[in-house]
Amino acid sequence: MKIGFIGLGIMGKPMCRNLLKAGHQLVVCSRTKSSLDELIAAGATAASTPRELAAEVDLVITMLPNSPEVKEVILGPNGVLEGARPGSIVADMSSIAPLASQQIAASLVEKGIEMLDAPVSGGQPKAIEGTLSVMVGGKQEIFDRCVPVFQAMAASVVRVGDVGAGNVTKLANQVVVALNIAALSEAMVLAAKAGVEPELVYQAIRGGLAGSTVMDAKAPLMLDRKFDPGFRISLHIKDLANALDTSHDVGAPLPLTAAVMEIMQGLKVDGLGDSDHSALIRYFEKQAKIELKRPPAR
Amino acid sequence: MKIGFIGLGIMGKPMCRNLLKAGHQLVVCSRTKSSLDELIAAGATAASTPRELAAEVDLVITMLPNSPEVKEVILGPNGVLEGARPGSIVADMSSIAPLASQQIAASLVEKGIEMLDAPVSGGQPKAIEGTLSVMVGGKQEIFDRCVPVFQAMAASVVRVGDVGAGNVTKLANQVVVALNIAALSEAMVLAAKAGVEPELVYQAIRGGLAGSTVMDAKAPLMLDRKFDPGFRISLHIKDLANALDTSHDVGAPLPLTAAVMEIMQGLKVDGLGDSDHSALIRYFEKQAKIELKRPPAR
Repeated sequence: MKIGFIGLGIMGKPMCRNLLKAGHQLVVCSRTKSSLDELIAAGATAASTPRELAAEVDLVITMLPNSPEVKEVILGPNGVLEGARPGSIVADMSSIAPLASQQIAASLVEKGIEMLDAPVSGGQPKAIEGTLSVMVGGKQEIFDRCVPVFQAMAASVVRVGDVGAGNVTKLANQVVVALNIAALSEAMVLAAKAGVEPELVYQAIRGGLAGSTVMDAKAPLMLDRKFDPGFRISLHIKDLANALDTSHDVGAPLPLTAAVMEIMQGLKVDGLGDSDHSALIRYFEKQAKIELKRPPAR
Repeated sequence: MKIGFIGLGIMGKPMCRNLLKAGHQLVVCSRTKSSLDELIAAGATAASTPRELAAEVDLVITMLPNSPEVKEVILGPNGVLEGARPGSIVADMSSIAPLASQQIAASLVEKGIEMLDAPVSGGQPKAIEGTLSVMVGGKQEIFDRCVPVFQAMAASVVRVGDVGAGNVTKLANQVVVALNIAALSEAMVLAAKAGVEPELVYQAIRGGLAGSTVMDAKAPLMLDRKFDPGFRISLHIKDLANALDTSHDVGAPLPLTAAVMEIMQGLKVDGLGDSDHSALIRYFEKQAKIELKRPPAR
């Protein structure tokens, strides 16, 4: 299967490298010349527009920031829709609004083009390792044909339903992650302000019902004051905004997600939009006038 | 070390059995004759009041519902303080307000009695197995003397600081658990209302950053509509009320904990106070007019 890939950012570039490593023929398209050159050196060929790229391949993968960028690249002038052949497939691996996925799919299907929404979790490290988790929405038959391609980039590939279901699942994931970070933040700031070493609290509770992947990934970063991304607050805001839009569309109010989203907005105003989402704790620290730290070395 | 145990409830009784199994001499005291008889049959002896019990033993353990009950049993008429010998130890394993622990310790120390606050997590199943987690506040030397006793009931025994620190840690634990259940609830209700099978969402996200002990323990219960306790909402309300009291005392606002506490209060009004805390999802389900369910068998 000849693959086209659009969106050579911090996720897209390593994903392309893993596709090439697995032996796939790859055509790429980007406005960033340095990214293009890198991938051409690694064995890809280049197309000048999404339209030209789509005309050459059986499967177009897009990996872009949000719904408007995906719509522009697929449905806009010189976009994928203008070039793609009937019977070809578009797999959008961006994290966007489920409704946008469904709208794009509806436009594609009119020209006989199939669509999967296939957002990922795991971030840049797992994109490099080729161990992403892919949550896929779309027809079973189209999913089956694309599984080997996804597997070149991922450790886990799960079909969760029809088009849009992949992004609903990703939004559910992002809701849990945001609230679990907030939970850890409130607990650690409470303990620290009450005079207990947060490091000891972490060690005492991590093995019980309070334990989580977020706790083990983020508590050490909070204690070490390491807020480099990771996953930027501004991107998590984008995901929570999509979650809230969807929740309002379908009628499933998310009061706690809305509260965490506003807290993240406050951090963005404070200049922390480019910090890792573990910097959420800084909101609670500011309110409590305290900062977590490691106990002095003994 | 001769041990006295007060509070033979669903936690206390199995904890006593594990102390007897480990070969400790045990004196118990309870107003519930059936519990007394059971433990006497298992090898304990009985005292008629906390005062008499305290006079006979080196270590008094209390396992009671909340701060007022612990104060009554230790400081009240015919209480532990009236009977305990100087040099003896009181270990309160109840989950109460850290400030109450400190007040009780101050009264005990005047009579030369040492105090540990040593709340547990793990619930009835781990109390029966003898695999509780104990979070201990108090002097290092007193802690060291009691560790073998705690180990008869626990898989993990951690000293987290001075008196009160055990309960601060327990409150931090309960804050995380409550918010992680709320996170799971919002995510699952969003996905279900948006038309995606919550079972598939759970399977797709549990291995990534959204994974947690709460998710693996509670998502299956939510899908199976099994809301038997477990850990009662009314008890979790008690813990969150103590967390908020403490947070207000020390100056560490917990807006999300407060929101979850109010949601739990709403469920109590709806008659769900005795349900497992995983029934938190029923608040979000009610708002979204939907109920989670397993996919039909294929």
